Amino acid sequence: MVLQAMKYSRGKLEILDQLRLPHEEVFIDIRTVQDAWDAIHSMQVRGAPAIAIVAALSVAVCLSRCNRNGAWHERLEPDMTGSCLIIHSLRFLLTSRPTAVNLGDAVKKLEKVVDAAKVKAGATDFDINEAYIQAAEQMLIDDVQDNENIGRFGADWILRHSNLIPPVGKISVITHCNTGSLATAGYGTALGIVRSLHARNFLKRVYYTETRPYNQGSRLTGYEFLYDKIPATLITDSMVGALLGLKRESENISCIIVGADRVAANGDTANKIGTYGLANLASFHSVKFIVAAPRTTIDLSTASGAGIPIEERPPTEVTTMKGRPVKKLEDGSLEVEGDVQEIAIAADLTGAWNPAFDVTCYKLIDCIVTEKGVIERRENGEFHLDDIFQT
Amino acid sequence: MVLQAMKYSRGKLEILDQLRLPHEEVFIDIRTVQDAWDAIHSMQVRGAPAIAIVAALSVAVCLSRCNRNGAWHERLEPDMTGSCLIIHSLRFLLTSRPTAVNLGDAVKKLEKVVDAAKVKAGATDFDINEAYIQAAEQMLIDDVQDNENIGRFGADWILRHSNLIPPVGKISVITHCNTGSLATAGYGTALGIVRSLHARNFLKRVYYTETRPYNQGSRLTGYEFLYDKIPATLITDSMVGALLGLKRESENISCIIVGADRVAANGDTANKIGTYGLANLASFHSVKFIVAAPRTTIDLSTASGAGIPIEERPPTEVTTMKGRPVKKLEDGSLEVEGDVQEIAIAADLTGAWNPAFDVTCYKLIDCIVTEKGVIERRENGEFHLDDIFQT
Repeated sequence: MVLQAMKYSRGKLEILDQLRLPHEEVFIDIRTVQDAWDAIHSMQVRGAPAIAIVAALSVAVCLSRCNRNGAWHERLEPDMTGSCLIIHSLRFLLTSRPTAVNLGDAVKKLEKVVDAAKVKAGATDFDINEAYIQAAEQMLIDDVQDNENIGRFGADWILRHSNLIPPVGKISVITHCNTGSLATAGYGTALGIVRSLHARNFLKRVYYTETRPYNQGSRLTGYEFLYDKIPATLITDSMVGALLGLKRESENISCIIVGADRVAANGDTANKIGTYGLANLASFHSVKFIVAAPRTTIDLSTASGAGIPIEERPPTEVTTMKGRPVKKLEDGSLEVEGDVQEIAIAADLTGAWNPAFDVTCYKLIDCIVTEKGVIERRENGEFHLDDIFQT
Repeated sequence: MVLQAMKYSRGKLEILDQLRLPHEEVFIDIRTVQDAWDAIHSMQVRGAPAIAIVAALSVAVCLSRCNRNGAWHERLEPDMTGSCLIIHSLRFLLTSRPTAVNLGDAVKKLEKVVDAAKVKAGATDFDINEAYIQAAEQMLIDDVQDNENIGRFGADWILRHSNLIPPVGKISVITHCNTGSLATAGYGTALGIVRSLHARNFLKRVYYTETRPYNQGSRLTGYEFLYDKIPATLITDSMVGALLGLKRESENISCIIVGADRVAANGDTANKIGTYGLANLASFHSVKFIVAAPRTTIDLSTASGAGIPIEERPPTEVTTMKGRPVKKLEDGSLEVEGDVQEIAIAADLTGAWNPAFDVTCYKLIDCIVTEKGVIERRENGEFHLDDIFQT
């Protein structure tokens, strides 16, 4: 079964607490705008599309309660009502993660919906709320649908470019970071492609990197594969070279599939730190390197990767690690016990550099998979990304 | 001051307990052969040259006590005396880490010394012991001397191939894993070159990878740099691409320097997992890629990397991590407290692949630095490693 990290029905939103994964599966209720703000700020939910949807739906949950009861129960400021309150809530939610581009986009779109509903003749607060709720719900539906399309288009493309040897006819792939149900409204982008390959019985195995320093791979992606019963093997980020060197043929490794934080107009792609090294190895070993991202990730106003600022995060993310204590049993196996503990894995006073992303040159990318189709480089070696906005 | 992880004077050997690093500096006394076996087996000492020297010196410590007191105090088996006892001890030590090539080499050499001493006319147990002690002590002296030579030759070569812009005239380098005082008898191989650059005031900064999954970089190499006051910055293995992409010029990054576990006759080099990916990135960014290794690491009987077996280690090394618990102080800083704790960083039942080494193709290597000089590829692009054994 495909992991559903976000459970929504009108008036009710629950999200899987990512801070407790992979050791505990706890759903938390998002009943108020403040609940959503806290969940985003504390990283209980992460992943740019997932953040945007949770923010949008948290307001919808409040509005649907309001429409049912005829009153808004969690007023942020007592003198505000109706559409003004919605806008205020959205702007407040924006402060939970100021750099999240998708969240900003979603807020802009929803503000327009509210503005349009407001100017309709005879519009009541109820109508405005209803218009908002429907728009937010549509965002959830669209994001899952987009990811399923990315999955289908990506899997089609990979199978066309793979060596499918009968009678097995299966391929293995490599992925990085978490781009799955835990990062999106559902299904995932790069992981959507992996899920699609698996659903169609073409996946031999997926190798996934732990993705230092925040370990989204070992903590989240591994959890998704276990949940969905997809055959998967964890490796450290440093093992991709050995994997391609030693197992390319025996495992029929076809491609490396990653997500994207931002794709520049020329195809240069900013993504989780480590992506660039993997692209380099893919190129050296002639396996395909695939970027999976919805069109909203493509930023035509940024000419190339040089224009993408790289966030540097605190050194302590590199020098510490979180997990649950283990004890060794008599038979040598390990048992987890107790609460999540943070440990220091380097000496005090260790200086560290911690860039969150790197930029992969478009020349190392074979194709970009969007919800509207796959973009390949043209004969001159260049991407023409504006085409995908015409379809 | 250069870290001395092994303190030896006749009759006395102390080694820095690497299991407690980087959080505690505790020297342990190696008084018996069993002490050495335990220290090697439990990884209190690691690094192929270091293991060999500790094993050799532990027998020397016993023999010098024996010669002083006229009796061997820690007999392994009561019916053994003299040279037989030495050979038995060495073979016992071999079982502490069966795959360690240097340890096997050292044992062979020392057995020859014992055999030679035994057949000398009028040789007493005292004479045989004395011959052994001197040979073991010479191993320690030679290993440090060899590393200092590697450091000098390597630094000379790098400075000749670097862009030294006045008035600063300093370069930055990148290294991987631990090849320092903690892995050798002292000074280090790749770290010997870094130390030499620093001692000559040409080192701007060394970037070192944490080296997953066993974290020799963050735990050990970082400790050595702090101890020696060498300007150093920790990065994850996945950040080398970003570092070369973003800081190649501003930091004047000249090269990546690594050690080697085994160099094949054609120059293919097996080294700590992740090395191969770094070599790939170095090539892409036109920074030099340098292997530092004593001649004993060069195995002319293995034609190429394809003939080097790759050890696969337990998956739990990838899914767990050791460190000391930290608590967050009121000002947001972190404080270490309590004993070393092992934590699980992936879900139960996570399958992982854990190759200990990878193989870097000789074509990605610019030079191999030995204690006798630097070997570059010839005009035809090939290494001729046998030359270095003629000098």
